[in-house]
Amino acid sequence: MTTIRCLQCQSPVPSDLEIAQSVEPFEISRIAAAFGILPSELSPYGSTRAKVKLDILKRLENTKPGKYVVVAGMSPTPLGEGKSTTTIGLAQSLCAHLQRPTFACIRQPSQGPTFGIKGGAAGGGYSQVIPMEEFNLHGTGDIHAITAANNLLAAAIDARIFHERTQSDEALFRRLTAELKNFTSIMKKRLEKLGIHKDDPKDLTPEERVRFARLNIDPNTISWKRVMDVNDRMLRQITIGQGKEEKGMTRTTGFEISVASELMAILALAKDLNDMRNRFGAIEVAKSVSGEAITAEDIGCAGAMTVLMKDTIEPTLMQTLEGTPILVHAGPFGNIAHGNSSIIADRIGLKLAGENGFVLTEAGFGADMGCEKFFNIKCRTSGLRPDAAVVVVTLRALKFHGGVEPSKASIENIDALRHGCSNLLRHVENIRKFGVPVVVAINEFSTDTKMELDIVKELALREAGAFDVVVTNNWSRGGAGAVDLANALIRATQTIKADFRFLYPDTDSLKMKIEKICKEIYGAAGVEYLNDTNEKLEDFEHRGFGLYPICMAKTQYSFSHDPSLKGAPTGFIVPIRDVRVNCGAKFVFPILGDISTMPGLPTRPAFFNIDIDGDTGAITGLS
Amino acid sequence: MTTIRCLQCQSPVPSDLEIAQSVEPFEISRIAAAFGILPSELSPYGSTRAKVKLDILKRLENTKPGKYVVVAGMSPTPLGEGKSTTTIGLAQSLCAHLQRPTFACIRQPSQGPTFGIKGGAAGGGYSQVIPMEEFNLHGTGDIHAITAANNLLAAAIDARIFHERTQSDEALFRRLTAELKNFTSIMKKRLEKLGIHKDDPKDLTPEERVRFARLNIDPNTISWKRVMDVNDRMLRQITIGQGKEEKGMTRTTGFEISVASELMAILALAKDLNDMRNRFGAIEVAKSVSGEAITAEDIGCAGAMTVLMKDTIEPTLMQTLEGTPILVHAGPFGNIAHGNSSIIADRIGLKLAGENGFVLTEAGFGADMGCEKFFNIKCRTSGLRPDAAVVVVTLRALKFHGGVEPSKASIENIDALRHGCSNLLRHVENIRKFGVPVVVAINEFSTDTKMELDIVKELALREAGAFDVVVTNNWSRGGAGAVDLANALIRATQTIKADFRFLYPDTDSLKMKIEKICKEIYGAAGVEYLNDTNEKLEDFEHRGFGLYPICMAKTQYSFSHDPSLKGAPTGFIVPIRDVRVNCGAKFVFPILGDISTMPGLPTRPAFFNIDIDGDTGAITGLS
Repeated sequence: MTTIRCLQCQSPVPSDLEIAQSVEPFEISRIAAAFGILPSELSPYGSTRAKVKLDILKRLENTKPGKYVVVAGMSPTPLGEGKSTTTIGLAQSLCAHLQRPTFACIRQPSQGPTFGIKGGAAGGGYSQVIPMEEFNLHGTGDIHAITAANNLLAAAIDARIFHERTQSDEALFRRLTAELKNFTSIMKKRLEKLGIHKDDPKDLTPEERVRFARLNIDPNTISWKRVMDVNDRMLRQITIGQGKEEKGMTRTTGFEISVASELMAILALAKDLNDMRNRFGAIEVAKSVSGEAITAEDIGCAGAMTVLMKDTIEPTLMQTLEGTPILVHAGPFGNIAHGNSSIIADRIGLKLAGENGFVLTEAGFGADMGCEKFFNIKCRTSGLRPDAAVVVVTLRALKFHGGVEPSKASIENIDALRHGCSNLLRHVENIRKFGVPVVVAINEFSTDTKMELDIVKELALREAGAFDVVVTNNWSRGGAGAVDLANALIRATQTIKADFRFLYPDTDSLKMKIEKICKEIYGAAGVEYLNDTNEKLEDFEHRGFGLYPICMAKTQYSFSHDPSLKGAPTGFIVPIRDVRVNCGAKFVFPILGDISTMPGLPTRPAFFNIDIDGDTGAITGLS
Repeated sequence: MTTIRCLQCQSPVPSDLEIAQSVEPFEISRIAAAFGILPSELSPYGSTRAKVKLDILKRLENTKPGKYVVVAGMSPTPLGEGKSTTTIGLAQSLCAHLQRPTFACIRQPSQGPTFGIKGGAAGGGYSQVIPMEEFNLHGTGDIHAITAANNLLAAAIDARIFHERTQSDEALFRRLTAELKNFTSIMKKRLEKLGIHKDDPKDLTPEERVRFARLNIDPNTISWKRVMDVNDRMLRQITIGQGKEEKGMTRTTGFEISVASELMAILALAKDLNDMRNRFGAIEVAKSVSGEAITAEDIGCAGAMTVLMKDTIEPTLMQTLEGTPILVHAGPFGNIAHGNSSIIADRIGLKLAGENGFVLTEAGFGADMGCEKFFNIKCRTSGLRPDAAVVVVTLRALKFHGGVEPSKASIENIDALRHGCSNLLRHVENIRKFGVPVVVAINEFSTDTKMELDIVKELALREAGAFDVVVTNNWSRGGAGAVDLANALIRATQTIKADFRFLYPDTDSLKMKIEKICKEIYGAAGVEYLNDTNEKLEDFEHRGFGLYPICMAKTQYSFSHDPSLKGAPTGFIVPIRDVRVNCGAKFVFPILGDISTMPGLPTRPAFFNIDIDGDTGAITGLS
């Protein structure tokens, strides 16, 4: 039973939606069966999506894993480089054309961009995930579950403050423990933290009752925001609690887009349900008036959050146009979080691919962001070791980094190309510092000239030490257009044994870690610690977070903190404007500039094109 | 292949969760097959939930439908009456014990109450929907899709105002139509409304460009709120747009709980996807500064909203503990909306049940609310005609309506019972005004005495003309405990041919409709129109909404507008404080008092009990 589909590629290439709708997807159970997933390990969601149960990891414990390849990009430009398209096309090539069992592990897109500016994220042309509407819309509901869990915690924080303010110590304790002969197991976690080892609420002393019942949250310290998976700029900063019944308990806060929630970062890094539950409990949401950290466990809803998110821990199996399996898991937001798909999906993919196969896992944004975090955060957490990296570029984007305006990037311009290549070269050199061989994929456009292509090849091979540089045209030709890239990748993993190493050990101080990233990856001359970041970093070290990795919150458009610095800037000083810790995701994130965590809608959002035929159910205008 | 499961009922009755977890659900495909749903008509979501495709209605076009029974309640009390439990128990009885193919059509519960005060809504004891956690949590994602669609529209409204304020006429028109040779089909709908019949943006006159591009929304008139499926009281009233980038465009608004969205009311009343799409377009969200109604179609996102909600139109098949099929569709919110499950689910259930079978459909709150709206709104929209009604009561709740405190409601009290029976009697009389026979179900408690039961029976039969009054104990015994009720219902539908009639014709004026409901159903002496409701109603008549039915926004705790008036109050004057129109759901709703559309969390929310075992995935504390 094969699940390979041969594409009849048209020229000119039709719209993404037309291509996607021209292909009848295989039943997802058939894809699953073809790649070794048992029916009992599959939870179908309709006929084209299915969640994969984590039991599969036990069954395949002793299977040898496939090759682990991270797909990264050059510094992104407004022109788009086609990283997702190349990931999908390369997977099609390996799987359908070279008979290497391959899983592409990608992130579920946010609905915000789908209806806003960017459109969906299912790849494009003849390298797409299908059905693209299922992929771009609700998936199997993971982002919605994150929204629900995130906002339950937010509501619980404010409600707790409200109830503490409006009730006496006795009333508060009585209501919290009414009719309880024993504290609930969730309450016991807080009691343990307080060093109170009693089961029966009646046994607490008056002082213990107050300590248990009063979190005394300082409203000015609440760092937990509400989230929504919509581009809604008016929610960036809001004042809540203005209803009469709320008795003047107003507070300034804001919404972020759901995929920016710490819960998303946790989902991608969690090993299993227990690990997720414990990380949720550890999330710090505020400080008490006396400066103690208040966690989701103190609020009492980390269990309920895990219950809401229990199904999210299972990755979703989908397929490409050519019937190649895709594991969709976790979501975007590479600038404030790590921006990688999940450890669990990669692990399942590696076992299912087996020693002859491949897992392609996508890292968000440029390699300085997504790939650095893939190595230093994701691989550190998972223990998995990458075998190779692919860096996707276009000549247009390289010329843009060489100073050319977008509208002129399709015109041959050797000087600008040479200049802009510096961006690619530094990404390749950076990845090689981690001991991983790099294959460069040039996503070809019809306007590219042979001379331009040769220059990029020569520079990347000779100056940056890329293993190979290959032209791909999988957008117009599907997997057939990435066979050379696939062969180069196979050769790289056969020829070179990756000697993976982190950029810094756990035991480096937070400042040493920050400086290594800024100097060795970004090319900075130094780092300056602004505002109270020195004190905060000291405090973090003191509280034991010094062992956490660093997750830089930086623009993706430049190696530096300044999005206007194209190419491969040097000599700049990186300003650390703020520094925070995610105690659930377990990383420290320095903030280098304004990072928007809630996009807006443009004057003409994508929704002006999107409609549905009520008779046939056919969707128009999604891309 | 049977899907009947015989329960071994324990005494004392274990917790809901223990009972639910003691039963292994059938594969949902097996339930589907047993009740005549083809595999091609089913979209599974995991192994225990599946959406049913609307194609099934075409296939079964010529099948005779089952009996259509609405399950209603007396006026609710803090004690709980067990309406959901009785609906499910009665369905089990008819189906598993009396071999009548039966579908119970119920609403998807909101997550707010699940983690707040009330707990879940899967029934209780040995009459439950399983798996209760799937039912109480995300279901098949319908409420999440409503949240997404509702909030896309909200974000689009504010973004549109922002872009109109910050751009010149020319820039606005240019950005809206950039690179378009023809207007999109969505833009054409607005042009049609404006009487502009041109395809090419270039052909518009300057004046037409302004009319097309400037909606000129008056921010003070925006009635469309954002929603969230969480009990978050601090969002009831908020100020948005306080971020620097929003250039001072602040506005006071608020969130409602997702199930209160007009989109939910529309989902329940929509005939098909086309009807849903058209209703979404008709939603009025604000007025322009010159007083014109601005619709979701004008904003341009009714198509995208329908795309987001395309799967919600399919009801979800689940099962009871005894393997009886359940159709879950639409959601609660009977006080400001109609509070009924969907027309589509009822229609599918009726066809699948066939002429020997039954559909039990649950109407929210007391019969004065849910059942009146079921008859006057839902049946009017669907054209379906009910064959019988069941009214669920408990002696405790009747005594509460007779003036007894909740803590003493389990003690025999003949006077209070006689007095409180007035509540039941009026509900029965009301339903009989619609020409529908009524069976009263007394949900028995161990503290009920024979004398008390006899009094209720006698009063309901003799004074109110109930067809029968039957004691049930399906909570403790499952379907076996409702066999007498099931037999009484079968007899009612065999003996009496319902002579269904509406309380008012479409052509009555809005005021006549309001007064008929207030006087004939609520027992009011009159109606007074406060504030500007006279003018508003006149305006509605003028704009053609006079043909819409009325959806009263009233407390559910009393026949009157005053929740403290128990029993069957008379002589009161109903105050109409405000009146609004839902142009998508197509009803006019008078507002009688403060109706909260965003619940809060209590001091000890349900989440303090809810946790998950990370190793086994077993959930604790859900109810």
